[in-house]
Amino acid sequence: MTASWLDIKDSLFGLEALPYATFRTAADPAPRLGARIGDLVLDVAAVTGVGAGGLDALLAAGPAVWQDVRTEVTRLLSDPASEQQVRPHLVPIEDADLLLPFTVADYVDFYASEHHASNVGRMFRPDSEPLTPNWKHLPIGYHGRSGTVVVSGTDVVRPTGLRKTPDGIVDGPSIRLDIEAELGFVVGLGSEQGTPVPLREAAGHIFGITLLNDWSARDIQAWEYVPLGPFLGKSFATSISPWVLPLAALEAARVSQPERDVPLTGYLDDSTLEPWALDLALEVRLNGTLVAEPPYATMYWTAPQMLAHMTANGASLRVGDLFASGTISGPEPGQRGSFLELSWSGAEPFTLDDGSVRTFLEDGDEVTITATAPAPSGSRIALGEVSGRILPAKERP
Amino acid sequence: MTASWLDIKDSLFGLEALPYATFRTAADPAPRLGARIGDLVLDVAAVTGVGAGGLDALLAAGPAVWQDVRTEVTRLLSDPASEQQVRPHLVPIEDADLLLPFTVADYVDFYASEHHASNVGRMFRPDSEPLTPNWKHLPIGYHGRSGTVVVSGTDVVRPTGLRKTPDGIVDGPSIRLDIEAELGFVVGLGSEQGTPVPLREAAGHIFGITLLNDWSARDIQAWEYVPLGPFLGKSFATSISPWVLPLAALEAARVSQPERDVPLTGYLDDSTLEPWALDLALEVRLNGTLVAEPPYATMYWTAPQMLAHMTANGASLRVGDLFASGTISGPEPGQRGSFLELSWSGAEPFTLDDGSVRTFLEDGDEVTITATAPAPSGSRIALGEVSGRILPAKERP
Repeated sequence: MTASWLDIKDSLFGLEALPYATFRTAADPAPRLGARIGDLVLDVAAVTGVGAGGLDALLAAGPAVWQDVRTEVTRLLSDPASEQQVRPHLVPIEDADLLLPFTVADYVDFYASEHHASNVGRMFRPDSEPLTPNWKHLPIGYHGRSGTVVVSGTDVVRPTGLRKTPDGIVDGPSIRLDIEAELGFVVGLGSEQGTPVPLREAAGHIFGITLLNDWSARDIQAWEYVPLGPFLGKSFATSISPWVLPLAALEAARVSQPERDVPLTGYLDDSTLEPWALDLALEVRLNGTLVAEPPYATMYWTAPQMLAHMTANGASLRVGDLFASGTISGPEPGQRGSFLELSWSGAEPFTLDDGSVRTFLEDGDEVTITATAPAPSGSRIALGEVSGRILPAKERP
Repeated sequence: MTASWLDIKDSLFGLEALPYATFRTAADPAPRLGARIGDLVLDVAAVTGVGAGGLDALLAAGPAVWQDVRTEVTRLLSDPASEQQVRPHLVPIEDADLLLPFTVADYVDFYASEHHASNVGRMFRPDSEPLTPNWKHLPIGYHGRSGTVVVSGTDVVRPTGLRKTPDGIVDGPSIRLDIEAELGFVVGLGSEQGTPVPLREAAGHIFGITLLNDWSARDIQAWEYVPLGPFLGKSFATSISPWVLPLAALEAARVSQPERDVPLTGYLDDSTLEPWALDLALEVRLNGTLVAEPPYATMYWTAPQMLAHMTANGASLRVGDLFASGTISGPEPGQRGSFLELSWSGAEPFTLDDGSVRTFLEDGDEVTITATAPAPSGSRIALGEVSGRILPAKERP
């Protein structure tokens, strides 16, 4: 493994990670592409000439340039002869204003965790099978609102909406406001309308991954979602990390997907392909207390399957499409990526380090999701973090 | 009423209509804003200086400019003194290449016709109430795929996907391919995340309307849509007219909405506001045969209600957001805006002028939707048309 001339040997943001962001500084307010190294941001646009405007430019440049830029950034940060050239373009992370990393085209949210979908089924349909009959035949997903995807650190106003109560239908602030700890996939290579992307080519369309929190108002969602799916229960805000980790950094994280109980149709059959589950360890913190450790490797559907499915009807991809995994929940209670599951629909409150208890989110609560992955060297790399704080609901105008 | 110096007195595209398009010509391939007058396209960008690039520029310029440009175009086309200046900027419609009129930000599809929702309920849930319990409390909607919105005239490849059959789950070309005759609303004024748009201000965010065909693969949709709503059954293509008619042209079309059976919550209560139903007469033709005449005035939910609802949780609007009404169906059998209803889920085939019969779409079929509205003078104006032809399914790659 190559070492850097920077003193970052204990950092989770070493040369094997190098996630990208779109950033600006007080000294230079033009948004541009950066890469994280230790607690610094390298001005990638300045040192490589790629990334004026931000990550959008790198995405649009295509896979060959993705690889070239990563190779060049790695060389610049490891070759001692480059230090003098590179030093002026390293910004302390506290001086970098991290923006929404890319322009989100379409946003699709999947439902790829068997444990999450089963838990939800057990809570809401106790007399039926936990999974709907279609669940193991195809990765269920729906379109979300791309215009309300915000970068980590953006406050989230508690949404107000209609919910069903024993006293009738009430319009008021959500009282079951939740998180969903998810992984987002950033599409960097588009496709043609009318032509599906085959499974074996699907990963080639994905630039990288980002942490995502799909804020969810369970009470609004419960009243509205039959028959056309979630709408206002989700569309008020979706937070993503400013950091997008390229797939190139995840070679050591790829592990076998769970065994399939139901034979898969041709376009989803991954039995003869390289493994595409990802051994990412997530941590969800509420006001500093670690409340869940969802293991991404337990997800039933892989990212290439989600992408192949999303285009199986001929739907096209655009650069900047974002698709997310759905809530990541493992088999154990401490591995559940939503408060809905952690509090079992509110029936089992959980306790924070300060002694307070929670079922759903209270005003002022701050949720932070982080994750790490194995690196080729045997150490680990970090994905960055997505964080957000709940502001009180506003009166209707 | 003002007259034009052009000989267009029998045209449905007179001075009271003036829908906009984004067009280019062989002589000048730069996309730019046009307005339709008779069978001509006026190069609005050339004569007003607004609209380089197309309709996006006019949308972004805001409501005051929308009004100024419409006033100026009307003056230029009616004042005989302008003829010499304007003539060189009139393009015969057959020489204009009509493009997707604006860049679609988020696309939301509603379900606002009581007759359509009731028909669907009767077919699919014969043992329950036709409408779900939430239907009259809120305008049900979901997000669609904005990246696959295409302009009228674009061929549509029959989608392939999974459907449930008596012999199991099958992957193959959709055999229940359908249309949905809808009206689309184009948002021209954005809003801030966290702050709902009140009902009385909602219309001020809408620039205009366009005809929309929400192509739907009923068999794919039926297998996938529980519990998160339609996805691949809809996302392969949505066609819109190249023509966007400004709300300013619809003053004479505004009529009272249907009486509300269920009292509406404050943010949806339109009982004390000006009427916002629209008296538009749609016509749906299949290979030239008139198969349905859906009356838009029968829609239960109004456009301002849909917009207020879409933002009621604090979701923001962006310039270029598109939301659609859902299938427009009236109370009579001949007024149904989908083949699903016209053929009663395939049980009652209907006959075309050439003697052929249809339940759902066959390869080569061409569907055209047109509409007219009353004009202040007492005559009528046209909205333009949305048309599309079905190409055979492709083999999976």
